[in-house]
Amino acid sequence: MTDGHVDFADYCPRYEHAMSLLGKRWTGLILRALLSGETRFSAICSYVPGLSDRLLSERLKELEAEGIIERHVYADTPVRVEYTLTQRGEQLRPIVEAVQVWADRWVPLEPVEVSP
Amino acid sequence: MTDGHVDFADYCPRYEHAMSLLGKRWTGLILRALLSGETRFSAICSYVPGLSDRLLSERLKELEAEGIIERHVYADTPVRVEYTLTQRGEQLRPIVEAVQVWADRWVPLEPVEVSP
Repeated sequence: MTDGHVDFADYCPRYEHAMSLLGKRWTGLILRALLSGETRFSAICSYVPGLSDRLLSERLKELEAEGIIERHVYADTPVRVEYTLTQRGEQLRPIVEAVQVWADRWVPLEPVEVSP
Repeated sequence: MTDGHVDFADYCPRYEHAMSLLGKRWTGLILRALLSGETRFSAICSYVPGLSDRLLSERLKELEAEGIIERHVYADTPVRVEYTLTQRGEQLRPIVEAVQVWADRWVPLEPVEVSP
């Protein structure tokens, strides 16, 4: 990157990795929930319509393995578990914002279905 | 969006649609190829290691149906076909740039494999 210009001239495996990470079903919405300040499993699950507990759990484990979130367990009664973004995860914010800005401008309110 | 702050307080179906579109396997790399200035089927295919003609063809059709690219056929000999971004597609550039910036900073050169 030089002076705000990002070079796309060649294939980039880092970019491919980032896209494969962000592109997984639900991950974009889970990140958006975390960036909005949600930290609890149940709150994140409620934020994302249609997301099952099982898949949320799976995605959170993947994001933790990628160093994007941290899982904190507090010895309250009942035990309290919180998920927070690491620095690496927090810095995904510009991507999520850019997607939102584009979506607000270009996706109609009743979007055309994209086949899975 | 107000004053550069994007509101993530609630679930947004437009955002989900944008993410499902961008997150499909290969689509992020195909867009990066188009943003780099590639227009020919063969050039886009060469740009993305591992992408088959069949899948590139499928993805290009999807992007055309979404109004993100246009297919132009020129009556040369042999017939010349070019794919170019529409305004809607060109405005995905900030997203692709933000992914690249994050990947350059946070994805190691030998990335950990993400399961499909």
